[in-house]
Amino acid sequence: MANAIIAVDWGTTNRRAYRVEADGSVSDGMRDGAGVLAMAADDYVPALATLRERLGDLPVIAAGMIGSTRGWREAPYVPAPADLAALGRTALRIDDARAIIVPGVSWVHGACADVMRGEEVQVLGAVAAGLAPADALFCQPGTHNKWIATQDARIVDVTTVMTGELFALLKAHGILAGMLDGPVADGTAFREGIARGAGACDLGAALFEVRAAVLLARRAPEDAAAYASGVLIGSDVGARDMAGETVHLLADGTLAALYTAAIETLGGRVEPVDATMAFIAGIHHLRAHLAA
Amino acid sequence: MANAIIAVDWGTTNRRAYRVEADGSVSDGMRDGAGVLAMAADDYVPALATLRERLGDLPVIAAGMIGSTRGWREAPYVPAPADLAALGRTALRIDDARAIIVPGVSWVHGACADVMRGEEVQVLGAVAAGLAPADALFCQPGTHNKWIATQDARIVDVTTVMTGELFALLKAHGILAGMLDGPVADGTAFREGIARGAGACDLGAALFEVRAAVLLARRAPEDAAAYASGVLIGSDVGARDMAGETVHLLADGTLAALYTAAIETLGGRVEPVDATMAFIAGIHHLRAHLAA
Repeated sequence: MANAIIAVDWGTTNRRAYRVEADGSVSDGMRDGAGVLAMAADDYVPALATLRERLGDLPVIAAGMIGSTRGWREAPYVPAPADLAALGRTALRIDDARAIIVPGVSWVHGACADVMRGEEVQVLGAVAAGLAPADALFCQPGTHNKWIATQDARIVDVTTVMTGELFALLKAHGILAGMLDGPVADGTAFREGIARGAGACDLGAALFEVRAAVLLARRAPEDAAAYASGVLIGSDVGARDMAGETVHLLADGTLAALYTAAIETLGGRVEPVDATMAFIAGIHHLRAHLAA
Repeated sequence: MANAIIAVDWGTTNRRAYRVEADGSVSDGMRDGAGVLAMAADDYVPALATLRERLGDLPVIAAGMIGSTRGWREAPYVPAPADLAALGRTALRIDDARAIIVPGVSWVHGACADVMRGEEVQVLGAVAAGLAPADALFCQPGTHNKWIATQDARIVDVTTVMTGELFALLKAHGILAGMLDGPVADGTAFREGIARGAGACDLGAALFEVRAAVLLARRAPEDAAAYASGVLIGSDVGARDMAGETVHLLADGTLAALYTAAIETLGGRVEPVDATMAFIAGIHHLRAHLAA
């Protein structure tokens, strides 16, 4: 591999790009709001040009929603079990733009099915770089939290939980709007929420209780957001058996603290994994699997 | 009781008013969009005038969100166990407007709490009019589905489930927006949803599966709304043990069909109750408990 490349994590609302040298080290990076939702079809070629002005006139390898039907070109999912070799074989080349789009991964098991775009690079990159073992359970929270299991460095299982999105919807619209603007952090209210949400089969009722509790002055209004977040994250994490489980957590800041609290409260252990390093490692290790 | 009165079910988005004679019969009625959300504080007196122009210059007894903090005057909740006598004793009189606001009912049990405004009149009216027994389980679906249990003609238990609101939020915003516009009716897709949602402790995952299933062509796009509705209603109904239970269902049209299908699928029996007749009976039977 003679050259550096530009690795782009091209998401829905943000874009993060890195100059990755031939040895896998990162020499420069940038981030902006030019996510897929902000782009029309003919914005991508100029968007690549601005990347190259900033980071160098280099080939681009992009992963994430850019390969979805809402992105630039659809890169069809690679079905699980999927490893970096499979991603490399099916990556979408756009030669006249010197760009490659990494496909997402789909997973089907009986009646269940799930998909991801972008997380596969972080997960397989973490394994390839030794940031996690070849058999591991990953948790990548966000608007849509993804639980991803690997076996022998292959993605074998995926579950997506709409945790962050449900919180955002309830906060912005409907009967709880205006009640969920308080601070969300680990603490008593958050932990009470975890206890209520974990393993509960009545999430629709647990969420309305937030309103009733505030109206009846049984919960301080400033605690409602943390409690509701606990219910949702408790429901998310608590749907899995955490006893004795090690979770490789791809998260930063508040989300990392919240999910760590939930996982540990419910009997699990957290191994933090730097999501940026994992992504860069994923693109770097993918290069060896791309057709020349 | 010498006179007729105007009974008003004053909700968030709609208002339904009835002229109720001294013997409890209904001689006239109207309905419009002058719900609480459309009203400012000084709109209520003129709104009462239009009711009287239409239905007669009569006293008004109003129940529903008009007595909430977002309505005209706050009528503090009556705590469960609550019967018509308790509602009558604490009803809020606005004498210069010849109006009475019926209080809602609150319920507290250990760490759990719930509230209602308007449904108490329907439930206690159904019992008073013999449309349901004194010991009964009621289900009143809508944006917020309410499960209400009575014992000896008293409301003793309430659970509110955000079923309709969750569906509306997911349909209008976020990742499932655009996927849930298909027809919602009982059928194969709806019943598959019930099976997935009932008793499930991973609602946040079950909802995302809708997206994955459509993207991977494992569910026809036109079936996604019915399936998602089944998941939510299945989660709602299935959080309760329906085996051998009789549910007095205060619902019409599609919601009645959907909840009937879910309750029967999960082992329960449905006794339909006409919500309008129940409401009118509730206001009528309440009159005997109002201070002269």
